[in-house]
Amino acid sequence: MREQFTELSASEFFYRHKDLAGFTNPTRAIYGTVRELVENSLDAAEVHGILLKLHLKVSRLNGEKPAEGHEEKLHVHIEDNAGGIPREKIPTAFGRVLVSSKYKLRQTRGLFGLGGKMALIYGQSTTHEPFTIRSGTGKRSPIVEYVMMVDIEKNVPCILKRRRLQNPSGWRGTVIDLTTRGDWAHAKQKIIEYLTNTAIAAPYVTITFEDPDGTQCKFEPATTTMPKPPKETRPHPAGLDVEGIKRLATSTKATNLLAFLCSQFQRIGPVTAKKLLQFAGINPRKDPHKLAREELLQLSNAMNSFPDFKAPDPSCLSPIGAEQLEAGIKKQLKPAFVTAITRKPSSYSGFPFTVEAGLAYGGELPPNVSGKIPVVRFANKIPLLFDEGSDVARKAIDEVNWKLYRIDPTMSIVAVTSIVSTRIPFRSAGKEMVADRPEVERELLNSIRECARQLGRYLSRHQRMAYDKRRLDVFQKYLPKLAEFSTRLSGKSKVPNIDPLLKAVTRYQEEESSEEES
Amino acid sequence: MREQFTELSASEFFYRHKDLAGFTNPTRAIYGTVRELVENSLDAAEVHGILLKLHLKVSRLNGEKPAEGHEEKLHVHIEDNAGGIPREKIPTAFGRVLVSSKYKLRQTRGLFGLGGKMALIYGQSTTHEPFTIRSGTGKRSPIVEYVMMVDIEKNVPCILKRRRLQNPSGWRGTVIDLTTRGDWAHAKQKIIEYLTNTAIAAPYVTITFEDPDGTQCKFEPATTTMPKPPKETRPHPAGLDVEGIKRLATSTKATNLLAFLCSQFQRIGPVTAKKLLQFAGINPRKDPHKLAREELLQLSNAMNSFPDFKAPDPSCLSPIGAEQLEAGIKKQLKPAFVTAITRKPSSYSGFPFTVEAGLAYGGELPPNVSGKIPVVRFANKIPLLFDEGSDVARKAIDEVNWKLYRIDPTMSIVAVTSIVSTRIPFRSAGKEMVADRPEVERELLNSIRECARQLGRYLSRHQRMAYDKRRLDVFQKYLPKLAEFSTRLSGKSKVPNIDPLLKAVTRYQEEESSEEES
Repeated sequence: MREQFTELSASEFFYRHKDLAGFTNPTRAIYGTVRELVENSLDAAEVHGILLKLHLKVSRLNGEKPAEGHEEKLHVHIEDNAGGIPREKIPTAFGRVLVSSKYKLRQTRGLFGLGGKMALIYGQSTTHEPFTIRSGTGKRSPIVEYVMMVDIEKNVPCILKRRRLQNPSGWRGTVIDLTTRGDWAHAKQKIIEYLTNTAIAAPYVTITFEDPDGTQCKFEPATTTMPKPPKETRPHPAGLDVEGIKRLATSTKATNLLAFLCSQFQRIGPVTAKKLLQFAGINPRKDPHKLAREELLQLSNAMNSFPDFKAPDPSCLSPIGAEQLEAGIKKQLKPAFVTAITRKPSSYSGFPFTVEAGLAYGGELPPNVSGKIPVVRFANKIPLLFDEGSDVARKAIDEVNWKLYRIDPTMSIVAVTSIVSTRIPFRSAGKEMVADRPEVERELLNSIRECARQLGRYLSRHQRMAYDKRRLDVFQKYLPKLAEFSTRLSGKSKVPNIDPLLKAVTRYQEEESSEEES
Repeated sequence: MREQFTELSASEFFYRHKDLAGFTNPTRAIYGTVRELVENSLDAAEVHGILLKLHLKVSRLNGEKPAEGHEEKLHVHIEDNAGGIPREKIPTAFGRVLVSSKYKLRQTRGLFGLGGKMALIYGQSTTHEPFTIRSGTGKRSPIVEYVMMVDIEKNVPCILKRRRLQNPSGWRGTVIDLTTRGDWAHAKQKIIEYLTNTAIAAPYVTITFEDPDGTQCKFEPATTTMPKPPKETRPHPAGLDVEGIKRLATSTKATNLLAFLCSQFQRIGPVTAKKLLQFAGINPRKDPHKLAREELLQLSNAMNSFPDFKAPDPSCLSPIGAEQLEAGIKKQLKPAFVTAITRKPSSYSGFPFTVEAGLAYGGELPPNVSGKIPVVRFANKIPLLFDEGSDVARKAIDEVNWKLYRIDPTMSIVAVTSIVSTRIPFRSAGKEMVADRPEVERELLNSIRECARQLGRYLSRHQRMAYDKRRLDVFQKYLPKLAEFSTRLSGKSKVPNIDPLLKAVTRYQEEESSEEES
């Protein structure tokens, strides 16, 4: 008996293994559909510096009887004012898995060239309905509309209908209509939470949302200034593997290693390049195309252990920002105390990343009965709502020795973490959990510890103030009596004023103790 | 500014996103390398009904200075006596991602056509060393040896050297040698745990293992009988999506729906087929190749809600077995009490699966201070050691209302779960977490509840016995005094025998209370 070997196309692979892309059950499927399409719109707007206006409508299809459970046939309509897609690119951009404009060193929400297409493939495979893409790229170009399906086995688009429409107003944007199946009843709350958190991380977007039950939400922008569009960048040398170095060395136009290092990497100038090559023990005049395997290895090892690289260029990253994060937490969670920090950029495997963290305490937050501090997670500004148990943020929070900061995890505390990177190390194509890359974990630990230190200081001042108040109360209760008694004992008639005495033992001012209540 | 769209090959996609396949950090990378290769050998042996003998040797490469952390260059050598690979298939089987002999409805450990190749690609990309495959398929065929690399960008094998060797002894098996990088110090314990648990789930294999520190382990087979080789099967109709039905309907040789249903699905005979088509409201004589979209939908909806399908054919599944599971738990965990069950087969999306669960209590088990019952997980007999937090088994255990069974999760309890299926719904290509498909979750819940009922019964009998013993102690203490006093009071001289009285109030026999200690 001989084993037969067969090959799968990329779309067939992910269609067969929907769970890999997060389309696991009817709830996650409709949740995934909405978020992948929303994230595509956000990316398309941000890369062009457009203030996104997004309209999302999910509706029930008439005459459809929900099958077992609560699964039902749904229509999803999403409309944006982002850059639009060049008309000749539409078929492959929507009908072929592993095709994307995001395979670059750039901070985008999308990463895999997979999610949006999974939403379309999932809809098609559960309803056998085609989907419709309409797109315009602005003045002087018509609006084009494609009615399409995907040939999943071959990973190629099938165009059923194509038409051009006049575009006198110069409309620019993309509209997607698809039919799918999902469990709306269970997904609804998560989707609203997702949109809310998205609006926190990107407060310049306008999102309107209508759902099958008649719910309407509008997320108004809190600001009209948006961060600079994410820039494409070169790899940072720390952590690049041999394969990566070899590819750059093969494709470079530089004819010596010195020029090669300066042109292909960020943060390497002539001085650093010379030092690095000395550290690696390789001749700087060597042609990068002619590196032997051993030299490639030497260079890779040197890059991984060279101590003098500058931190990655932060200009290609766009973190949420500590202030923004604090403001978002205050608005959403209404705590008594909040602290947040943005760490300096760092890198893993050559990819720059920045970690941010926040801790909120007290106020309207409930205590953590289970003793586990809940965490609100963001990755490249995407809210992550599922699979917390396998996320590096969860791991880092559980690793912190909270006692060191005199913090009891059962108190009313919530942690917030955010990672931005030119490549988030997601652990599944469903983009719900970030892998525990040691560099990322270390940064997260440091940022959470820094916040814990702040919270610990707040708490101990809080405790000292409470102690001081009790102490003062004792003084206030007995000093007058003591004064009166002493006056009588000494035969004097005027009781001395004890206010200066009381004032002298007061350690905290009134305004400070009012701050603690705010 | 126009966005550029680019396409990635499957190998490039997974090379860029190593985390998707579980190769996240130096520890997971060497762990993943070993397990993927071991699982390939296990599958190759089982499909041919061969009692696997596996030799695994990991060694340190001389002169290599561990870089930052504990990462180091390692050599992995794995040798099996399984079926071997036909020589013309070797280049694609090892040098092309998404090529596999396992894309079938069959219970195998491998599933994606990815893991073994990821091990090779990871080794190559971190060390730039080629890997060597040697394979023989038995008598009358030579041994062939390939020294290869993968062209990751193009997803094609690059053969560096190829040679044929005489095979006078008719050797059959595969030997793989590769160089890679990993954090052995941290991975070692997990790898030994992995091999130990593998031997529990497949007690007919012999594994010898040598590591860089000189540790040698040998896992001897506990039995020489092995389960029947997994059979390929047809899909079960319940839960198949429209895309799946359409593909079968397009490729079938049947010319009417009745014949189509009977030939393409398991568990459908002429009677069920007729009932199903009546239920769907479709003419049984209709040509399956000519089904309209609406009819396909009708058929799919009917298949998803038809109540009278027989359970999936269990003959294609090979669960561990309740007895085997109990024996394994007893041997490994040494509890005071153990119970395990194998559920009847069920199906999700047309894929048959069987769930097994066990609960162990007391004995040498430590109490669960955190209040979370730990779980030992298997999927198609693969031990899953990472990412428990996002696994359906964890979710099911946390959902059980333990109080109902008078069980306190902080007691010394360990849960064991096992899922076997023709397609395990893994949530990541790293095969560490199973997705919460509703059908799988339900079966897990039921199986754990059944075990909880057994444990609850044991515990309450245990409590009753303890209560009874205390009660009996009271009787034994006071009855003799009472008897003596009554005798004196009545003026008689002979104290009556109280043994029959004591026996009458004894509710549990001595042998039962000795059993509770066993």
